[in-house]
Amino acid sequence: MTSYVGHNGKTIVDRVEADGREGRLGGMLTIPVRREIAHEIISLSYGFFTPLEGFMNREQVESTLNEMELPDGTLWSIPIVFDLAPEKISEYGLRSGDEVLLEYDGSPIARFSMDDIFDYNTDEMSEKTYGTKDLKHPGVKRTHSYQGKFIGGKVTLVNEPKFNPPYDRFWMTPKQHIDAFRKKKWKHIVAHQTRNVPHTGHEALMKQAWFAANEDMPVDQIRTGILVNAIIGEKRVGDYIDESILLTQDALRQYGYFREDVHMVTFTLWDMRYAGPREAIFHAILRTNLGCTHHMFGRDHAGVGNFYRPYDAQDLLKQYREKLSIKPVFLMENWYCPECAEVTNASVCGHEKKAQNFSGTLLRSILTDGVKPTKKVMRPEVFDVVMKSASDYGVGSPFVTEKYLASRRPIFNLRKMEVQKA
Amino acid sequence: MTSYVGHNGKTIVDRVEADGREGRLGGMLTIPVRREIAHEIISLSYGFFTPLEGFMNREQVESTLNEMELPDGTLWSIPIVFDLAPEKISEYGLRSGDEVLLEYDGSPIARFSMDDIFDYNTDEMSEKTYGTKDLKHPGVKRTHSYQGKFIGGKVTLVNEPKFNPPYDRFWMTPKQHIDAFRKKKWKHIVAHQTRNVPHTGHEALMKQAWFAANEDMPVDQIRTGILVNAIIGEKRVGDYIDESILLTQDALRQYGYFREDVHMVTFTLWDMRYAGPREAIFHAILRTNLGCTHHMFGRDHAGVGNFYRPYDAQDLLKQYREKLSIKPVFLMENWYCPECAEVTNASVCGHEKKAQNFSGTLLRSILTDGVKPTKKVMRPEVFDVVMKSASDYGVGSPFVTEKYLASRRPIFNLRKMEVQKA
Repeated sequence: MTSYVGHNGKTIVDRVEADGREGRLGGMLTIPVRREIAHEIISLSYGFFTPLEGFMNREQVESTLNEMELPDGTLWSIPIVFDLAPEKISEYGLRSGDEVLLEYDGSPIARFSMDDIFDYNTDEMSEKTYGTKDLKHPGVKRTHSYQGKFIGGKVTLVNEPKFNPPYDRFWMTPKQHIDAFRKKKWKHIVAHQTRNVPHTGHEALMKQAWFAANEDMPVDQIRTGILVNAIIGEKRVGDYIDESILLTQDALRQYGYFREDVHMVTFTLWDMRYAGPREAIFHAILRTNLGCTHHMFGRDHAGVGNFYRPYDAQDLLKQYREKLSIKPVFLMENWYCPECAEVTNASVCGHEKKAQNFSGTLLRSILTDGVKPTKKVMRPEVFDVVMKSASDYGVGSPFVTEKYLASRRPIFNLRKMEVQKA
Repeated sequence: MTSYVGHNGKTIVDRVEADGREGRLGGMLTIPVRREIAHEIISLSYGFFTPLEGFMNREQVESTLNEMELPDGTLWSIPIVFDLAPEKISEYGLRSGDEVLLEYDGSPIARFSMDDIFDYNTDEMSEKTYGTKDLKHPGVKRTHSYQGKFIGGKVTLVNEPKFNPPYDRFWMTPKQHIDAFRKKKWKHIVAHQTRNVPHTGHEALMKQAWFAANEDMPVDQIRTGILVNAIIGEKRVGDYIDESILLTQDALRQYGYFREDVHMVTFTLWDMRYAGPREAIFHAILRTNLGCTHHMFGRDHAGVGNFYRPYDAQDLLKQYREKLSIKPVFLMENWYCPECAEVTNASVCGHEKKAQNFSGTLLRSILTDGVKPTKKVMRPEVFDVVMKSASDYGVGSPFVTEKYLASRRPIFNLRKMEVQKA
């Protein structure tokens, strides 16, 4: 029998019910949820967050914030919570022990067995997750937007999402990732976390990570691969649109910048918390659950603004190294070096004073004007795919705008179900 | 107390006597040795070949050839032997148990405690070391040039070599290597075996190996370094001259193609056997004794002609992985890819059909004509250093010619000693 092992040696969580159970859902109290919650239900049910089987109860949140672990000692860094306004709890008459049907976008999505309804101080949650209570931090802002009460309990997906193009080509559950790696005969898989359209500096980082992850594998056949796992979720104005991220990352392999047999692109539904060190640990756990053996961490991983120092995330990973089931690959930043006449890494190149750092801001302004960046910075095919995806899926720009957010096509649809209301 | 640990956990051999012992050497039977033997005496005495303390006896040769190990089970792949013509043995009246003084270039070099005088079939020695008896193989030719009898026994260096410029800057004993790494705070050291003036493909291999060797080290400070350890010894017409090899490898760091704190160049006195797989194992052992933790192995390591398949050496290293005290870093070849517009590796680049392989023959013919190769192939400063070293140390060419061999400056001198002859 095929085994699927994830974080801390736990079996990959699988809480997905076969379709066609409308009858059994009839009569349940139905509570609509917003996009954020729907995404986390999907990730929880397919086992992306193994060993979590649902939203955290108070004990789990406390243990995560204070001990950096779940109550059973498993390393865990970020609270995964279901929030609801106290008025709603009263209105629905919710009590611990109740099972309800969660609904998203007009369709049932999951059963929710509530086992703990609790309060939690969001200042404390912010401080301990992000190391700050500053509302300018987007994670703190998110935490402060929680609606007053939290409900813990297991979820069971009752309606599998059907992803729309181009997402459908890139969607894989954790078990499907593990199966795909077995089929490719990859023994070592290094995860590359991304929210970006790749410039040549990102490409070089992935290649450097390949060498680090290949370790002492003989190279008479390929045994090591790169999983580019994009984070798809909450978008902020100025971000790259999700479609551009996936299609350009995939273009690197399609146009030969990676061998066909060393590279693949998928995504995870997750709203970035920008929690820096704690989010780095979360990403390590997440990619362990996808079957990865290695995870790339660059400079200021999952950071935002100046809230974290460049190597804070690496320091925390180092501290919890023994509790990770995945090997971190630490990298310094890449730059373009005119002396070396190539993209190279700060850890090996000696021309620091002449190095030209990659400027995301500059690249963004060039792309916004539809101007093709120099080949040294962006592969020409990547530029073409950015522009095409901007026209196919965006509103003429590869960047998120208010107009894009207003007219955004859904990532997935849920099947409409005829369920008798309570 | 500082500890110096080498291959298989053994303490680094140190069989060097303090100078000023001329008196004690007086009256010993003196036997002159040729360059090959003198080099191996030096390497043995400083511990480059730890745990060997001298030339092999019959049991050690047999065990090396048949079991790939020394009689105590330590991995070993190449016979290290002292040969002498039977007539000479009669003439000197040599017997097992005798101690003699070995002399090189008119000066005493070592005491030799002979404990075994034996015959060995050179066909068998060739076949088992090289996998062939073909005299076109330079190692087989060397083995067949042995003078009929072998003498095993410990050697003790009594006269330390004084290396001439430019060698003096690059000479380090195994213990000095280990001390240097400690001073640099390197925890991981990856050895790069070379007999070449570096082209950009070699440089890229070293950088790839750096990432492989850095493993999961955090990069807030440099903990991983590259040891370029050149093989200095027997030269064949058409080889790069040794001075060019050392000076150009060093130029890569001097001109910033490597950071000052990740790269250093030294050499080992060793005559290449071109034994492919078995020599790869020997190189791994040698660099373990220099304190390296990792060793780079590319395509057809230490091979010659078509005697070995490209990954035979990697296969053998893999087979003996558990008995190595150093971690092999296996790499495929680099090429220049016009699509990627960079030097890249066959294990990651998908443009195989467009790739331009590095041609040693082409580069050689360009350099022979004194023409500067394109920057894509050779760093301009490396070219300048090649040409300067050709004029300073060669006969106008960076390649070994008959004329160079005839007028070659000595690598080292031995102090003249007044020793009373027997």
